[in-house]
Amino acid sequence: MSVVLPPIGIPKIEIDTPALLIDLTVMERNIARMAAYFRVVKAKLRPHTKTHKLPLLAHQQIAAGAIGVCCAKLGEAEVMVNGGIRDILIANQVIGRQKIARLVSLAHHSDIMVAVDNPDNVANLSAAAQVGGVTLRVLVEVNVGMNRCGVEPGEPALVLARKVMAAPGLKFAGLMGYEGHLVFVTDYQERAARTKTAMRLLTDTVKLVESAGIPVEIVSAGGTGTYNITAEIPGITEVQAGSYIFMDGRYRNILPDFDCALTLLTTVISRPGADRAVIDAGRKAITDEFGPPTVIGISGAKLVNLSEEHGTLVLEGDARQLEVGDKIELLPSHGDTTINIHSHYFAIRNGSLEAIWEIAGRGKFR
Amino acid sequence: MSVVLPPIGIPKIEIDTPALLIDLTVMERNIARMAAYFRVVKAKLRPHTKTHKLPLLAHQQIAAGAIGVCCAKLGEAEVMVNGGIRDILIANQVIGRQKIARLVSLAHHSDIMVAVDNPDNVANLSAAAQVGGVTLRVLVEVNVGMNRCGVEPGEPALVLARKVMAAPGLKFAGLMGYEGHLVFVTDYQERAARTKTAMRLLTDTVKLVESAGIPVEIVSAGGTGTYNITAEIPGITEVQAGSYIFMDGRYRNILPDFDCALTLLTTVISRPGADRAVIDAGRKAITDEFGPPTVIGISGAKLVNLSEEHGTLVLEGDARQLEVGDKIELLPSHGDTTINIHSHYFAIRNGSLEAIWEIAGRGKFR
Repeated sequence: MSVVLPPIGIPKIEIDTPALLIDLTVMERNIARMAAYFRVVKAKLRPHTKTHKLPLLAHQQIAAGAIGVCCAKLGEAEVMVNGGIRDILIANQVIGRQKIARLVSLAHHSDIMVAVDNPDNVANLSAAAQVGGVTLRVLVEVNVGMNRCGVEPGEPALVLARKVMAAPGLKFAGLMGYEGHLVFVTDYQERAARTKTAMRLLTDTVKLVESAGIPVEIVSAGGTGTYNITAEIPGITEVQAGSYIFMDGRYRNILPDFDCALTLLTTVISRPGADRAVIDAGRKAITDEFGPPTVIGISGAKLVNLSEEHGTLVLEGDARQLEVGDKIELLPSHGDTTINIHSHYFAIRNGSLEAIWEIAGRGKFR
Repeated sequence: MSVVLPPIGIPKIEIDTPALLIDLTVMERNIARMAAYFRVVKAKLRPHTKTHKLPLLAHQQIAAGAIGVCCAKLGEAEVMVNGGIRDILIANQVIGRQKIARLVSLAHHSDIMVAVDNPDNVANLSAAAQVGGVTLRVLVEVNVGMNRCGVEPGEPALVLARKVMAAPGLKFAGLMGYEGHLVFVTDYQERAARTKTAMRLLTDTVKLVESAGIPVEIVSAGGTGTYNITAEIPGITEVQAGSYIFMDGRYRNILPDFDCALTLLTTVISRPGADRAVIDAGRKAITDEFGPPTVIGISGAKLVNLSEEHGTLVLEGDARQLEVGDKIELLPSHGDTTINIHSHYFAIRNGSLEAIWEIAGRGKFR
């Protein structure tokens, strides 16, 4: 199967749809703004690449000052290593013989780091690292209230840190905690207050571990919604924000610091009634678990339903002039899961197609 | 990037995760059951391949008696044509110069058929077919109450049918209507009654068109949830059921005729508390717009949250014995959108990996 792709240089509006667009000017400004912020705080930026899934953009973030990247999965880390990125944190547990073998393989070609929250996993990582002749950097993940992965703060974290310290082939690099339950708290003051409380669980644990004579080099936390809260908490050494590069509808609602660079270009395929238009994009092209996508720039047009391959719009006023064949641009409510269902980005500058980028990390959930 | 795939023949439980499994015995039984049903009714089966997205399985359905296939998008139809399938209905409008050019291209290599609901589109298709030197088969889509695409029943459908009849390069092949608003009605009697009412809009329109002297060869409708209702309505010539091949949690709740063949194999990556387990599959590996996936075969384990790359389970009773590294199989609530985010099927027979199939139509929404 050949993939049908448009020629570079054509006007945005001529790109066949559905097509996932990046506004390069906005994206580059987002990268620059975040980099500028991190130049004046102590913490460093370790952007999460689960958003963009592209080594090219990871290199741009690093060139702007980021210390490395974060990945959600081993498969994403393989993409980044193949793209020449070296300093990578897999902010997740790597479990099972096959995945641990791949992790050790990556350690030969990068400075990989992985999260742990379980002593058996520590033993398995240690055994495989020794067989492979590598040293794996390890962060102990601490539950800061999200109640997903992670050992409890305090003594349980210290116990696991000691196990890592004692495990040949492993280097205890520090602690990690993710306040994922707080990154979308609407009110900034409340978000800041609750994040500080959550992060105290992490920083108090750092103190406990250090008081036991174990040096804690890295304390990794944070997301786009809390980047400028978490980064300013004493003791946090790096922040894992990812979504800021493109933003999306949900984040934009609570965070005016960055602009939206990611949209889905669609086409009206049916105008079956005066107040209804149907576009060529449904749930297989844009996700809606964070709410429906927003129609951009057409007052009176509202997306009211997504099926698998159709989006249904209700039209009022001037929007009723929409015709079959007209293009409609949507803002995704959730960028990360929308990107994951696309094979390519169409990168736009000044209204023209500057580049087409295959999304290298698409679907790399193993 | 090399893709890491397991060797053929290994036990199912050794396949690394997340992995989308097909139980071949169940799938083949579903195909056979549906084929047996259609051997005794007048209507024919035209399975919708938006579910499985694989020419190999389309060929199996045709070998069992199906007359051809249905696709949601032009890109899916290209995959089917490349896989050697000839009789294809794109049950959707194909809009825009570039897509119409691809449609004409396909007509050189298949017996493609497309839905229309707009006179300008009819004119565009006609012009392109003439330039390309092909004849495109066309179905007029009629709105039977779903209120998505389609002209209104009766006179508006007749008007458009006349336009198709008069358009050089096009062959008016018949009418199409999709009762998508009824396929999930829980109660069978209610589903049957409402489907019959909806289908009367279509069959009455057939009579009107025929009474105007226009022969109606094909009347295409139906889905898995209404297959044995719609197939038995006089005048319906073919049914577009697709999900029956694998089924999923939502369809299984209302339709006991077929069994579930599609599951997601996952691994426990964290056991942070006595009542909590975290697996390595989130919304990037299984969808939940039709409700959460169901844990199979582990009493007391319930999936309560999906984030992007994690699933969180609450555990009661014996389920609390789950350990990090244990495998958990999930039944998707929606098969079609889950398949769309996977690169490969892992086909299982008698507990072993019999085949790995790349999902050829994945993400082919253009």
